[in-house]
Amino acid sequence: MNIPRERARAAAEACARARFPRSVADLAELIRFPSVSADPKRRAAVAGCARWLAGHLEGIGLDGVRVLPTAGNPIVVAESRAAVPAPTVLIYGHYDVQPAEPGPPWTSPPFEPKVRDGVIHGRGASDDKGQIMAHVKAIEAWLCGARRLPVNVKLLVEGEEEIGSPSLPAFLRRHRRALAADVAVLSDMPLPDVDRPALTYALRGAFAAEIIVHGPRADLHSGIFGGFVPNPLEALARILGTLHDARGRVAVPGFYDAVASVSAAELSHLRQVGPRDEDLLRRAGAQATHGEPGYSAHELATIRPTLEINGVSGGYQGPGPKSVIPALATAKLSARLVPDQDPRAVERLLRDHVARHTPPGVHAEVRAVLHAAPVVVDPRHPAMIAADHAYRAAFGVAPTHARSGGTVPAASLFQEILGIPPLLMGFGLASDQAHGPDEGFSLEAYQRGIAASIHLYAELDRLPFNRGAAARRAASATPGR
Amino acid sequence: MNIPRERARAAAEACARARFPRSVADLAELIRFPSVSADPKRRAAVAGCARWLAGHLEGIGLDGVRVLPTAGNPIVVAESRAAVPAPTVLIYGHYDVQPAEPGPPWTSPPFEPKVRDGVIHGRGASDDKGQIMAHVKAIEAWLCGARRLPVNVKLLVEGEEEIGSPSLPAFLRRHRRALAADVAVLSDMPLPDVDRPALTYALRGAFAAEIIVHGPRADLHSGIFGGFVPNPLEALARILGTLHDARGRVAVPGFYDAVASVSAAELSHLRQVGPRDEDLLRRAGAQATHGEPGYSAHELATIRPTLEINGVSGGYQGPGPKSVIPALATAKLSARLVPDQDPRAVERLLRDHVARHTPPGVHAEVRAVLHAAPVVVDPRHPAMIAADHAYRAAFGVAPTHARSGGTVPAASLFQEILGIPPLLMGFGLASDQAHGPDEGFSLEAYQRGIAASIHLYAELDRLPFNRGAAARRAASATPGR
Repeated sequence: MNIPRERARAAAEACARARFPRSVADLAELIRFPSVSADPKRRAAVAGCARWLAGHLEGIGLDGVRVLPTAGNPIVVAESRAAVPAPTVLIYGHYDVQPAEPGPPWTSPPFEPKVRDGVIHGRGASDDKGQIMAHVKAIEAWLCGARRLPVNVKLLVEGEEEIGSPSLPAFLRRHRRALAADVAVLSDMPLPDVDRPALTYALRGAFAAEIIVHGPRADLHSGIFGGFVPNPLEALARILGTLHDARGRVAVPGFYDAVASVSAAELSHLRQVGPRDEDLLRRAGAQATHGEPGYSAHELATIRPTLEINGVSGGYQGPGPKSVIPALATAKLSARLVPDQDPRAVERLLRDHVARHTPPGVHAEVRAVLHAAPVVVDPRHPAMIAADHAYRAAFGVAPTHARSGGTVPAASLFQEILGIPPLLMGFGLASDQAHGPDEGFSLEAYQRGIAASIHLYAELDRLPFNRGAAARRAASATPGR
Repeated sequence: MNIPRERARAAAEACARARFPRSVADLAELIRFPSVSADPKRRAAVAGCARWLAGHLEGIGLDGVRVLPTAGNPIVVAESRAAVPAPTVLIYGHYDVQPAEPGPPWTSPPFEPKVRDGVIHGRGASDDKGQIMAHVKAIEAWLCGARRLPVNVKLLVEGEEEIGSPSLPAFLRRHRRALAADVAVLSDMPLPDVDRPALTYALRGAFAAEIIVHGPRADLHSGIFGGFVPNPLEALARILGTLHDARGRVAVPGFYDAVASVSAAELSHLRQVGPRDEDLLRRAGAQATHGEPGYSAHELATIRPTLEINGVSGGYQGPGPKSVIPALATAKLSARLVPDQDPRAVERLLRDHVARHTPPGVHAEVRAVLHAAPVVVDPRHPAMIAADHAYRAAFGVAPTHARSGGTVPAASLFQEILGIPPLLMGFGLASDQAHGPDEGFSLEAYQRGIAASIHLYAELDRLPFNRGAAARRAASATPGR
């Protein structure tokens, strides 16, 4: 890096440090929106959140800020062009959050952010409002310290990640030219610890579905009708009970067939850098591991696929007993997939399995709600090397290269639809309780995430890119213009 | 029956006919109380319902009316003594009702009774407010037409039948002397049709329980932790999936061991009087029977035991997907039992079975919530013959002798604790949708139920009884005095 660039970066860093208290307040404002994409009753909060974010992006000096409609929740886009032809970075995040319920109560209300012991608590604090704000604040810092960024940035913040990004594929297809970039940066994953940064080089894919078992026309008295009327809850339990064997290995025939083997080198790397079973169990608050035999907990959660029951509902759920045979029973399932599993092939396997195990007298309906392909990034990609340097500068240590068990549908969509390699650079921490009660985001991780982003943009300057094409692209319309 | 007695009965019948519109309005007032015993939030409505009923009983001229406290909901008692030494009849009913939710919406709100097509709709209209009011109105008619009843009556209306009568055993033990009677009449079961009365000579017993599977300390992100953390929903599905075989036969080892065989004569009787499979399935709105092979639907619902899953709850149940491994998962189960099954023995079998099928890494807790022994009454008992005549007089046809698949814990408790034979004389109809949405009570069945009760008291006059003891009992204190 040449001296003026280094000075500019130092100025950006100084701006970020000076403005950090304000950055915490801005994040708190963003968390205040109950932007739960799964809940139709939260539509207004989702829209309000998108508008607030757009206003904030305009306020810090981004150009082309737009709140673009989709078939679902709106997508916020913005950009900032470098002074000279430079690589283009597409920064992705999501402003929608998981529901706050069910589960144990929160220490403070999920949408009234509170800082306790250096952690800002609230639904979405880590996943993903805090992580996308790290980028927003890094951009703000560059604009404040150097008036221009060293690379072109395009920002895309969607509102449906937590429900599987159903509107994103059509959006990417429609705005493919405007979203052209050399690399996509996604910050939506946890680091093992605030002192142990990690570059994620693999994400699991996902297939999610609902199984709805239909029984009698209406709820029936189980004393009068019990014994001969097929009970949808019994049928659902039978079906769900066949999904795994006694050890917890998925028992849907063919489920593991397409799973690619992982090299001995990678296995040994994972063993070296990955958390030990005891650590993972302690963090999970679980008593014992289960699942496929012969794998560590970390392997089970990263290189092996899984099929989880996320919710079951049917019959009487209130206090006390009620003698009822319900008219229907529902389960929510999600599979996490690894290379080379195909979400649509897994859907077919599950449909066949459910049909085979549905007892007579009831009807089992399978509704697919999410398909996302697994993602693996080559660790030798120049963007990975740039991210390596950025983490090292901000966190003081080199990042490990890690696999995540999570899914970010956008990562595979960027690869498939835009042809852009995804860079998976998380700032959350494994201890954040994303999706759980008392979700929080460490302020130290936030500050380091801002610093790492500042460095990343500077490092990505070295990314090989087609100068002519990039210049044209940089001059081209941003989406919605 | 001598002539004056017959004249008195005719006068009572005339009173009942004249007052019937008022009797419908009184029943509507009783239905208006949302006296849901399963819901702690309805405590005030339950207490209000008991008070209203007591006031009504006093108003129509019953003596010794009391609202007596129990560990749970209060029990309403009252009595009316015959002019001369006579048998004593204990009339039982319950003023509590099933919850109105869940299930399809009601045509009219469950606690705003409405008459449509000769049926009064509302939760509890049939089970059991309408049926106990048939007795209340018959007593009122006797008092109006003849100033005295031909038998001594003691009325006991409890508020916890729908949650398994947990406070009734202690209450019966405490007030054993005051509740002494020659027969107990329970009207809390359906007739096949308003033109086909039936005397119930058998009730199934019941054992109900909750299974709570405890997993991780808190809800977890199923992407990050999925694959190695034991999922309580998966464990619960495994457990529930082992309760039945593929045909629906209960697969808990030993479950059928104590089941007494039914005589060939009774089997042939049931085949003759019982509903056909097609009729039961149509009424249930179900597509096919299931359960133990080799039995008709009616047999499965009466002479065979059953184990039903009444509710399952766990994880995310809201709209859309949520990637969660829940901290716990819960199921509500109930077994219906036949002679000679013992509810506590069945509890032990279920506990053993659950323990055997709980996968490692989770803890499954079994909470028993109800024990009720099965009941069978000898059809040659004089009270059965009296009821036979009463039905014949009020309905114009002789009743069939039927088994019910339902459970009335009080019936076995009267037998066990008070040594009184229970007479199971229902006025509800199979089409009433008891426990379901749009529960209703046919006004014709109500009117005939009142008439049948008027006749029953007259017929029970012939019941053999210990005149000296009865006279002493008639003079003794009613409960709570």
